[in-house]
Amino acid sequence: MKEIEELWREVRDLSLGNSGRVERLEFPPNPVEFLRDFITPNKPCIISNAISHWPALSSWPNHSYLSQTLSAATISLHLTPTGAADALSPLHSSLCFASAHVQHVPFPEALSLISNSEPHKLVAYAQQQNDCFRSEYSSLAADCDPHLGWATEAIGSEPEAVNLWIGNQHSQTSFHKDHYENLYAVVTGEKHFILLPPTDVHRLYIQQYPAATYTYSSDTGEFDLELERPTRYVPWCSVDPYPSEETVDDEMAKFPLYFNGPRPFECTVKAGEVLYLPSMWFHHVRQSAEDGGLTIAVNYWYDMQFDIKYAYFNFLQSIQFRSTPSPLLKDKLAEIDSDPDEYES
Amino acid sequence: MKEIEELWREVRDLSLGNSGRVERLEFPPNPVEFLRDFITPNKPCIISNAISHWPALSSWPNHSYLSQTLSAATISLHLTPTGAADALSPLHSSLCFASAHVQHVPFPEALSLISNSEPHKLVAYAQQQNDCFRSEYSSLAADCDPHLGWATEAIGSEPEAVNLWIGNQHSQTSFHKDHYENLYAVVTGEKHFILLPPTDVHRLYIQQYPAATYTYSSDTGEFDLELERPTRYVPWCSVDPYPSEETVDDEMAKFPLYFNGPRPFECTVKAGEVLYLPSMWFHHVRQSAEDGGLTIAVNYWYDMQFDIKYAYFNFLQSIQFRSTPSPLLKDKLAEIDSDPDEYES
Repeated sequence: MKEIEELWREVRDLSLGNSGRVERLEFPPNPVEFLRDFITPNKPCIISNAISHWPALSSWPNHSYLSQTLSAATISLHLTPTGAADALSPLHSSLCFASAHVQHVPFPEALSLISNSEPHKLVAYAQQQNDCFRSEYSSLAADCDPHLGWATEAIGSEPEAVNLWIGNQHSQTSFHKDHYENLYAVVTGEKHFILLPPTDVHRLYIQQYPAATYTYSSDTGEFDLELERPTRYVPWCSVDPYPSEETVDDEMAKFPLYFNGPRPFECTVKAGEVLYLPSMWFHHVRQSAEDGGLTIAVNYWYDMQFDIKYAYFNFLQSIQFRSTPSPLLKDKLAEIDSDPDEYES
Repeated sequence: MKEIEELWREVRDLSLGNSGRVERLEFPPNPVEFLRDFITPNKPCIISNAISHWPALSSWPNHSYLSQTLSAATISLHLTPTGAADALSPLHSSLCFASAHVQHVPFPEALSLISNSEPHKLVAYAQQQNDCFRSEYSSLAADCDPHLGWATEAIGSEPEAVNLWIGNQHSQTSFHKDHYENLYAVVTGEKHFILLPPTDVHRLYIQQYPAATYTYSSDTGEFDLELERPTRYVPWCSVDPYPSEETVDDEMAKFPLYFNGPRPFECTVKAGEVLYLPSMWFHHVRQSAEDGGLTIAVNYWYDMQFDIKYAYFNFLQSIQFRSTPSPLLKDKLAEIDSDPDEYES
């Protein structure tokens, strides 16, 4: 549908640029500038010198500082065999939407599990997105600002949630979007984002996948992945932007709108920088850190406006556009339903 | 196409409201509020107490004040037989887009022509939209503010154009949209607006009409309406929201998306009030005044952002939706082209 491809081009030509680069600000904008130049046009930016005064920047690279400060805290740790929590995973020779095994762990133990993460065995990621920075991690409150003043003034309310993320290079977050204005402050290590504007929604081949959850047994050190019963479907992006060498041809053939469309926006957010990730933008996130180090970030979710842009997005998404559906597990399930034993994977 | 009708509903449910009423503010917003609550969501409002301090509010109702202050000014006066300049008009048993005869007239004479306007004979309207308030009417500059401070600060630049409008109940403006953020300050009389959000674009049945211009002969007191040569087509809204009793059935049958769709936003802006008319909103304007009085307004056109909203609008407009095309003059013209004499109407 050529009109949709024209939309991808036009939003870049008019407003976002075609370079795939994210604009950088040397200093935080004032509230009027932030509204006018970024929130209104729904345009990302990376901001330097917005959190330079945070004690966290000097104290958090020190793991024993974290362990001591959080010695009495129990936190929600996400465990997977792959580092891909909230992501598509093979199951019964099709794909499901797999959530991590969430375990409540004393913080010092969690930190050790994260540091010792080993792909194909056990990858741990502290990424509970329920305002955890103000609950589980409240002992760290003094190390950061409770909100970003210029953003709060622009948006007109304090953050709805503040989350802490502690992981290393083995964890990544698959393509998705959030219904929030997101300010993402990196404290240690680096985060690598791939961003696509909401107008590119068809390029991600969102489909319904059956929800499944990992269960980890510390006795055997093994993961089970089991479908939720009753079946619950989750709409999720089908595209993995980093396919393996073995699957790349197949993936590119299945998802041509992603791989052949306009260049995605890519950026690296370093310690001390803040990414403004506009509401409804699709994002994929990897991270890196120095040897043995961690990537730690605090993100502020501010309420978004459900306004004309949101209505336009829903309209766009409602228009069918040559998605190449990968085989749905749904059909597979119909078969399996006759034999409940198959569910024990 | 049910997705487009769902869009009309959703933008009202989420953001604009379903009452057809325009939000009212007792005082002008500050720049952050104006950006956040109105420009970003592309939502109109009527603002009281924004221009209460203008000397114009007390001096302009006095016609002799205006004549004296502008005694040396020559202004661009728009003359039509109907009061509908820049509007569709019958021609050769089809429709054309008719522009007024523009005459440069000493202001005192213009004022008398406007006041003595008589429908079906001669209706005069001072409505030159080329920043005329800062050129032709510069002697009135001290009576108003050169810009609205809170809007200028929000938008980040001074108005691109400031226009003066002097007319009476015989003049109206047909449905159209502007590529500006518009602040419309009424000084005397009242303006009656019908507003439709950009998402309703299909409801206005925009079509290409051949451009024509009125020529007025002061000797005969007669108007001619002649097509431009070479033919130039102008995309214009087909809907007249106030059809006459004779044509109402026909119009409602031709334009069901307008007459049967969600209620348009309607508002009256009184002397001393300011309408924020967001960029890309369709608007139809009538005016009224006390007996023998005039409706005078100053409007500020500020640059709009050509951002993701604008790209979404162009996408929406590119989607075909059961427009019921009224017969185009184009076919008629093909016939006429063989007989150039027919052009003298």
